[in-house]
Formats: sequence, structure tokens, C-alpha cells
Amino acid sequence: MTARDVAVLVGSLRKESFNRKTAKALAAMAPSGLALEIVEIRDLALYDEDAETNPPAPWITFRDRVRRADAVLFVTPEYNRSVPGCLKNAIDVGSRPYGKSVWAGKPGAVVSVSPGAIGAFGANHHLRQSLVFLDVPVLQQPEAYIGGANKLFDAEGKLTSDSAREFLGKFLAAFAAWIEKIKG
Amino acid sequence: MTARDVAVLVGSLRKESFNRKTAKALAAMAPSGLALEIVEIRDLALYDEDAETNPPAPWITFRDRVRRADAVLFVTPEYNRSVPGCLKNAIDVGSRPYGKSVWAGKPGAVVSVSPGAIGAFGANHHLRQSLVFLDVPVLQQPEAYIGGANKLFDAEGKLTSDSAREFLGKFLAAFAAWIEKIKG
Amino acid sequence: MTARDVAVLVGSLRKESFNRKTAKALAAMAPSGLALEIVEIRDLALYDEDAETNPPAPWITFRDRVRRADAVLFVTPEYNRSVPGCLKNAIDVGSRPYGKSVWAGKPGAVVSVSPGAIGAFGANHHLRQSLVFLDVPVLQQPEAYIGGANKLFDAEGKLTSDSAREFLGKFLAAFAAWIEKIKG
Amino acid sequence: MTARDVAVLVGSLRKESFNRKTAKALAAMAPSGLALEIVEIRDLALYDEDAETNPPAPWITFRDRVRRADAVLFVTPEYNRSVPGCLKNAIDVGSRPYGKSVWAGKPGAVVSVSPGAIGAFGANHHLRQSLVFLDVPVLQQPEAYIGGANKLFDAEGKLTSDSAREFLGKFLAAFAAWIEKIKG
Repeated sequence: MTARDVAVLVGSLRKESFNRKTAKALAAMAPSGLALEIVEIRDLALYDEDAETNPPAPWITFRDRVRRADAVLFVTPEYNRSVPGCLKNAIDVGSRPYGKSVWAGKPGAVVSVSPGAIGAFGANHHLRQSLVFLDVPVLQQPEAYIGGANKLFDAEGKLTSDSAREFLGKFLAAFAAWIEKIKG
Repeated sequence: MTARDVAVLVGSLRKESFNRKTAKALAAMAPSGLALEIVEIRDLALYDEDAETNPPAPWITFRDRVRRADAVLFVTPEYNRSVPGCLKNAIDVGSRPYGKSVWAGKPGAVVSVSPGAIGAFGANHHLRQSLVFLDVPVLQQPEAYIGGANKLFDAEGKLTSDSAREFLGKFLAAFAAWIEKIKG
Repeated sequence: MTARDVAVLVGSLRKESFNRKTAKALAAMAPSGLALEIVEIRDLALYDEDAETNPPAPWITFRDRVRRADAVLFVTPEYNRSVPGCLKNAIDVGSRPYGKSVWAGKPGAVVSVSPGAIGAFGANHHLRQSLVFLDVPVLQQPEAYIGGANKLFDAEGKLTSDSAREFLGKFLAAFAAWIEKIKG
Repeated sequence: MTARDVAVLVGSLRKESFNRKTAKALAAMAPSGLALEIVEIRDLALYDEDAETNPPAPWITFRDRVRRADAVLFVTPEYNRSVPGCLKNAIDVGSRPYGKSVWAGKPGAVVSVSPGAIGAFGANHHLRQSLVFLDVPVLQQPEAYIGGANKLFDAEGKLTSDSAREFLGKFLAAFAAWIEKIKG
């Protein structure tokens, strides 16, 4: 049996992003039924409907990649109490043109990651509001607010926190079950 | 006495944007105490903290322009029940680098514009959540949800709706008073 | 085969509530697989954890009723851009005592109803944020924002709008399918 | 000069509430320009518009008390990722009957308090969304998310954390300045 193809979007572009490290840790520890792959969003031009007459190549590549995924996982920091512009832009690009959204019906989940105690709560829930419109059924529990993220990784970017690893393992198991429920 | 310099950010990049038309209508009808100018956000690269070592020229231009404004006005559509990525990216760019946000303390207001009946409510309030963090004191009333925006303008993009004009006039008067309260 | 038992919570207490009328219309037109019953919330004392040592009888009755339901449907107005206190109180009562929430795992849906154009959007999405925590998997599409509700019913409280009836029929069909997906 | 009269609403009814303790600590340490008084919300019947023909006495008492206040301070826990029903009900009661809201124009501030790390962020911002509609200009910075509240007080309910005391002192100073800006 083939593993479910999970497109992972990371809401931070910086090289040493805690979110990217978390996404990589999730990919490395995913159960056999899930194959997580980060889908890059850096090259997506800001969404402009006028550009749909001749869409930028990265838009097409991104849309095709997400479209063939079985599920979507968002790993996001909080910028100014909301979703980072880069991630929201990727969501917008994927939602268009009208009637051709790549998101609809795919089971989804949200992990928010921050050095702060609040664990990027604001980004997590703003993202969920978009996912209502996009018709992405989202895993409700466990919610994943990863705070204190600056203390969870070693110098090579490996996840060293046992409690975080344990939590993320449970999260992935719940997400795998959610995907089967929605897709099955 | 000099008019207050109000930086206007428009959350849509398409040429025939109802939001841009609304912003232009607001600029044209602003009371004498306010000078509204659209600050373009199209050329802002997606925010990446790593780029702060050598910031893209449009980031610098944008930050300088907003920094010298007395107040900020956001005119935004709703993309997927939230703030469009392009506008959120501009907000993120202006908020950084850490400790050098261009937003702090400037009085602000939000107008949300949509062809739909809901008037981009979701974008309006998600934006307001960011403005808490950015320390932008926001005009509370009147709230400005402009629905049915496709029926408000003529072929040249002029605002033809009397009721919309009347409402926007009251909105601008309240915003002018708010700016004086916060800055005075 | 037995119809699914759907507990319906109405977020308005007034007699001529448009929300109650909408709930009744939904119950009357529900497909054969769904049995909708309004669960009253009026008599629930404001939640106070200290009262758990000797819970008020209406709390117990309410909790028992919701616990045995297969699914939950919220029909709510917007009070001050959020969920009415009476409905939020019912949600709080049902969520407690700790570890004994009556909500967990039940498929849910939200209909928001308002005389205004915005269709109680603010209540709809604030409620959804609570449902994440409560582990209620919520129907994403179609979203149900019923605006202009004062024009949808006749003097006897019957739904007279054909377009509203058609929409609510589709909504109920989608909800029925959602319940089977989650429970099946 | 008379101190500003600040009505304090506490969003928890239990006797040993960390929110009530925080409210009391704030009242005790308020600067000379502010007089904080807790306004009780426990006896407010769930809002029902039909009851306006003969409003319950506690509604009248509550409305009169808030109406004469110069400013309002909300101290709230998070129940199910949002504002507790008891507090939202008090807000609803104060906002009615139509055209007679007791909130309009009063400067306000929000402190959210929780034993958890997230500091009741969800309640804090949902409350702010209501305050937009209610025309309460809200202090933006510093945001006050008080996490780990179970470790801040001694057995008598006194605030023993120096860092919390220092933060709350700065918060009160900012609130006092905000009140003068709005009222002055």
C-alpha cells in the first residue's frame, strides 16, 4: 500500500527557521502510512488576478504539486499575530483561478511554532479560518502550539526535545487517522 | 496648517481592483486636514529575515515612506476569509527588523471592500488583530464593510453610489478626528 | 435504520428569534437520515466551576441530552461581533467538568443568521474556534451565513424564501454526509 | 483631581479565580489617577431581548454602574478558546437595548489570565473583536497575556511574582495614559 502523499507548507523563509526544522522533524518521524514532503513557496509571485492570463511558472508548479497531494500540513510561525504573508500568498495562489482551487477536500492539519510561549496561536487560528473557505477539513485535536521552539533543536537542526518528539508523534498518528477518515 | 499625511495600503494588485477604486475615491474626497496617498506594495519581496543583511531596495523605500506618514489606512479585499498575502507581506516587511517597526503609534483605520454581501469582514478583523501587536490604535466606529462593490463604480472607476459616498465621507471625518485625538 | 440524532442549539432566547425559526425550518426539512431536535439553553445558570460540587439540575439535563446526540448543529445570531453569551455559556457548561466534555468527537455544523447583510460572520467563526478545542469536526462547506433573515419568514414563522430553502436543503445534505463520514 | 473611575469586569465566577486575584492585584497597585472597582456580573440573567419590556433589576444596576464609569477593564480567562459565556453575557446586557449601549466611547483594556502558557490569547482577541463594534477604543500595547497564573499568587491570593507585578505596573501606566488620551 502506498503512503499518503502529504504536501507540507512552511510559513517561514529563513534558512534556520524553527518551522522548517519542525517540518523536517515531522517528515523524518512520520509513520509508514504518511510521506511528508515540503513544497517550497519562496518563488511564488504575489498573487495578482491579472497574471492569470499568463501565470508565472512557479504558480503552475506549485498548484500541480499541491493538487496531486492526498493531504496538506501547514507548519507556521506567527508574524504580527497572524499568518505570515509568504504562507498566505501561497494559499491564495493555490486557491485560484476561481473554481480551480487545489485545496478543496484535502484533509489538513496545522502546527504552529514559535520561540515564544504562546506558540503562534494567532497564526494557527487565522489559518484555520481560511481553511473553512477552502473546504479543507482540519484535524481539531490535538492542537499543536509549539512554544519555546528555540530550545528544541541542536546545532545541526535535529529535534532534541523528548517531550516535543512524543507530542509530535501523537499528532502525526492523529493526522494519519484523520486522513484515512476523510479519504477512506 | 499642513494636512496629515496618510499612507494608504491597498490589498489587491489587479488593475481594476474595487479596493484601489475605493482608495482613490477616498483620496479624492478626503477632508482638507487629510492627504491620502497610496503606497505601493507590489514590488515587495516576500519577507525573509535572512535578507535583512542586505535588504531589497523596495523594502527600504516602503519602510521610509510609511515611517514618515502620520497615519495609515488599509483598504482590503478578503482572500480566503483573511487578509490577502500581498497586504500581509507588506505589513510584515514594515514591522521589521526587530525594534524598527514603521507602524508603532500611528493611528490607523480599516476599510474592507468586496463584491459579496459580507464586505470582507474576515479580512477586516484579521487585520485588526495584527494592528494590536503593531501598536496601531485603530478607529473602531464606524466599521467599514463595503459590500456589493461591483455596483458602486462606473466604467471609468468613479464612485457613483451616493450612499457609499455619504458613508465614506462620515468614515473619513471620524478617521480625521481619530488621528487628531491620537496625535494631538 | 435509525436517523442520526442531531442536537440543535439556538443562540437567541427571544420568542420571535429568526434563529429559532431557521432551526425549526431546518428540523422540518431534514432528510430522513437526520432527526433534529432543539436543545434548550435558557435555564442554564452561568458556568461557575465551584457549582460542580452540586451541579444545577439544568446543567445535568443539558449534558445528558447532548451526550447522547450523534451530532450537533449550532444556529446562532451575532451579538457584538461574536457568539451570544447564552450560547457560549451552554458550550462552556457542556465542556465541563474537566475530562467529561459532552462535545468531543461529535460531528458539527454552524449556521449563522442575521437580519444584516454580513450574516453573523463574526459569530460563525468565533464559534468555530471553540469547536477546535472541543474536538468537534465541523462541516466546512457550504458555509452558512444567512443574511436578511427578517425577509425570509411569514407571519407564522414559516420559511417562505425559495432560495433560502434550496440553500438550507443543500446544507443539510452536506451535513448528513459529513456526519456519516465522521461517525461511519 | 478625581481619579478616573474604571469598571473592572472579571470573566470567571469561581471564588479562587486567578482572574479575580489579578483584578484585585491591579486595583491595589493602581496609580493615583485610576480607581479600579470590580463590577459583578454573576447575577445577570442571560440576555433575552423580550425581557427589555421589564428588565431584571441586576441588568439595570449593571448598566447604570458601567455607564457612569470613565473606562473599562476586562480581566478574563479563556473558556474553550474564547470569552467565557458569563463575561460575554455581561457585554451583551450592557450593549442593549438598541441605541443605549453603556460601552460606547469608553477607553478600554484587556488582561487575559490563564494557568496555561498561551495566556488566554483566544479570549483576549475575541473580546477585542466585540470591542470594535461596541466603540471601545482599546489599549493596544502592552498586550497582557498572563500565563502560568497558578504560580503567581500565595495562599491568601496576594500577587507574589515580582515580574508579574512589574509588568502589570507598566500595563496600568500605559492604560492610564490611554484613558487620558481618549478622554482628555
